[in-house]
Amino acid sequence: MHEFTREHALELDARDPLAPLRTRFVDDDPELIYLDGNSLGRLPVRTAERLQRVVRHEWGGGLVRSWADWIDLPTRVGDRIGRELLGAAPGQVAVSDSTTVNLYKLAAAALDARPERRVVVTDDDNFPTDRYVLEGLAARHGLELRFVHSDVDTGLSLDALASALGPDVALVSLSHVAYRSGALLDMRAVNELVRGSGALMLWDLCHSAGSAPIELGATGADLAVGCTYKYLCGGPGAPAFLYVRRELQSELRQPIWGWFGQREQFAMGPGYAPEEGISRFLAGTPAVPAIVAVEEGVGLLAEAGVHELRAKGVALTEYLIALADEWLRPLGFTLASPRNPAARGSHVTLRHPDAWRISQALLARGKVVPDYRTPERLRLGPAPLTTSYTQVWDGLNRLRRIVETDVHEEFSAETARVT
Amino acid sequence: MHEFTREHALELDARDPLAPLRTRFVDDDPELIYLDGNSLGRLPVRTAERLQRVVRHEWGGGLVRSWADWIDLPTRVGDRIGRELLGAAPGQVAVSDSTTVNLYKLAAAALDARPERRVVVTDDDNFPTDRYVLEGLAARHGLELRFVHSDVDTGLSLDALASALGPDVALVSLSHVAYRSGALLDMRAVNELVRGSGALMLWDLCHSAGSAPIELGATGADLAVGCTYKYLCGGPGAPAFLYVRRELQSELRQPIWGWFGQREQFAMGPGYAPEEGISRFLAGTPAVPAIVAVEEGVGLLAEAGVHELRAKGVALTEYLIALADEWLRPLGFTLASPRNPAARGSHVTLRHPDAWRISQALLARGKVVPDYRTPERLRLGPAPLTTSYTQVWDGLNRLRRIVETDVHEEFSAETARVT
Repeated sequence: MHEFTREHALELDARDPLAPLRTRFVDDDPELIYLDGNSLGRLPVRTAERLQRVVRHEWGGGLVRSWADWIDLPTRVGDRIGRELLGAAPGQVAVSDSTTVNLYKLAAAALDARPERRVVVTDDDNFPTDRYVLEGLAARHGLELRFVHSDVDTGLSLDALASALGPDVALVSLSHVAYRSGALLDMRAVNELVRGSGALMLWDLCHSAGSAPIELGATGADLAVGCTYKYLCGGPGAPAFLYVRRELQSELRQPIWGWFGQREQFAMGPGYAPEEGISRFLAGTPAVPAIVAVEEGVGLLAEAGVHELRAKGVALTEYLIALADEWLRPLGFTLASPRNPAARGSHVTLRHPDAWRISQALLARGKVVPDYRTPERLRLGPAPLTTSYTQVWDGLNRLRRIVETDVHEEFSAETARVT
Repeated sequence: MHEFTREHALELDARDPLAPLRTRFVDDDPELIYLDGNSLGRLPVRTAERLQRVVRHEWGGGLVRSWADWIDLPTRVGDRIGRELLGAAPGQVAVSDSTTVNLYKLAAAALDARPERRVVVTDDDNFPTDRYVLEGLAARHGLELRFVHSDVDTGLSLDALASALGPDVALVSLSHVAYRSGALLDMRAVNELVRGSGALMLWDLCHSAGSAPIELGATGADLAVGCTYKYLCGGPGAPAFLYVRRELQSELRQPIWGWFGQREQFAMGPGYAPEEGISRFLAGTPAVPAIVAVEEGVGLLAEAGVHELRAKGVALTEYLIALADEWLRPLGFTLASPRNPAARGSHVTLRHPDAWRISQALLARGKVVPDYRTPERLRLGPAPLTTSYTQVWDGLNRLRRIVETDVHEEFSAETARVT
């Protein structure tokens, strides 16, 4: 079967228009197969260089004078993310705080804007921090947090969502791509459904930004937040972004009133009067070097082009699933992601009763970096910009060898004892 | 007058036990006089090196595997700040978010813990973001924000504070060192006064941490936040720290429920159940490189020793004031800081009707970096760890020359026209 040979993977790489961009990332260990780019993106070579300049020269040499260039980083880089990756016109995206804090700010603002509606809707498989933030707001303000059931492998159905909506719902908050299964929602359909009910829609784009085309403007999205340390390659703990549709900006007031949201900030006036635009959703002093790193990552994604990235993301995950069907299904793995690529982001999850121990063996002996997610899941994220077809082949080949040989026997014995 | 000669400054430097530590900081331009270390601290040489390692090797090489070392950075570096700079026993300090977001989290938690009390007290000269955060919380929850009058030059009196307290006050929030005047409050006296009234006390340590000895534990402080990009030399926009007295930790619940505050975070369970300790005051993913930079800055402050830093801070500001009295008072400057060093932090503010234009001339032609603060104030922050007596002498000498010669005549004409 030519399709499953390593030569075929090499041929796919030879035809891959994005392949040359892989050289723009640091790769200290070509033997390592990195399938966790959806958790922490790789380091771009020029990010390392630019960070050194920012630290050594802008901070070390320019000192406080460099704030003249730094002060608009949150909106400048936000605009760039909006243009290149989110389909958002300028003035609607800013980089600030963590995803968690941004979710809190926008959810709180939305809930305060619909005070007569007392329900928040999310799905029961949403990312933990999203669920916790909404739970905290609901608890504090006496609201109902309504969980729609989402299938842990295939995601949320529009019918299930529709049945949870009604005139009592103030806000719906969902992940565009589910962190566990990779299930991808139809943003336009969800926006229309939610708007039709009179609620506001808050998207978490952590697992889609930089890997799937997003059209916040054209699909009429209200609010969004997202992460920059995954596909955007901004580095560990890099600040998140937030999006507020222009028409909503003056209506919404976020709860953390800080000096970076204040009009004429350096007048340091006696009362809070927020900026008119997206800056009113900022709070404290921006994390300068980290935002600069985000800018570099976004620049590389822009060079690739978001449609090329999506095409490769689909091709890589289709390839991964084909290999998994051929090699891993016989070893007890099942697919825990949507099989239809139109309903899937750029990662694939495989279920196996020994997933935790297999993930540890892969790391320790296979030189493969996967991700483990409860329950019993290996999450494999071949980031389109930084992963080759051959790496996917090698990664899955090492995985099957480990399970087939030493590990498999031990695991089987263990499993037999437990069950 | 030997006291006012440059030779005297050189003698003071020769006797300064902290002088050798100045070589541990990047200094590209020895001609530059940097008097704004209380706005953005200088870059330690080893911070630049360590950041390169963290970025190039821990991120670039280790990738997601490095989280094993990173995951406890917020509390590990928090404990170090607590031990070296704040007089706080382990388990009470964490590094996270911005000062603004931390103020919000702790103030909201404190207000929710005293629901029968409906007043928040601060002073009318507190730093803008502090006032805005409290204003926002008061507006959202229908509380009264009560401003105590604070003298813009000499700070808040204990009598004024006492008169604002009462059984209706839930929370008092004050800056330990006032951002404008440098006025330093008596932490023990304030803690006792506030505790006696039954309210909780929240300190902003932005302008005192790393320059004045702080004894959060021994003085019975309840809550504190502070900045790491000033005296702690963590870099532009570095994350802030927060402190919660151990006895209060289980009683308080902060409003931003995120996955880094969750017990057994990676179980990703269905409901929020916060950690028992200081980690419950975390929210989102920590900013790894920035926290590492903070660790390096704190290490240098620890090498100096907080009591040595305070001694030098007092000596430098006393010297600066003596030079200002001698040279600048005749040119129309007045002292806008407490004259008693026991009531002053490590910066000194001078008032002059042309302060804004003088600050610009100093920057552009004098190679001196001061700070301008409304109204009509030059704020001079000779950070104890990185500033020499000779730099203070040179800075004030250039300042008087600029005002005496070209600038002064132009300014005088301008002032005469306006008044």
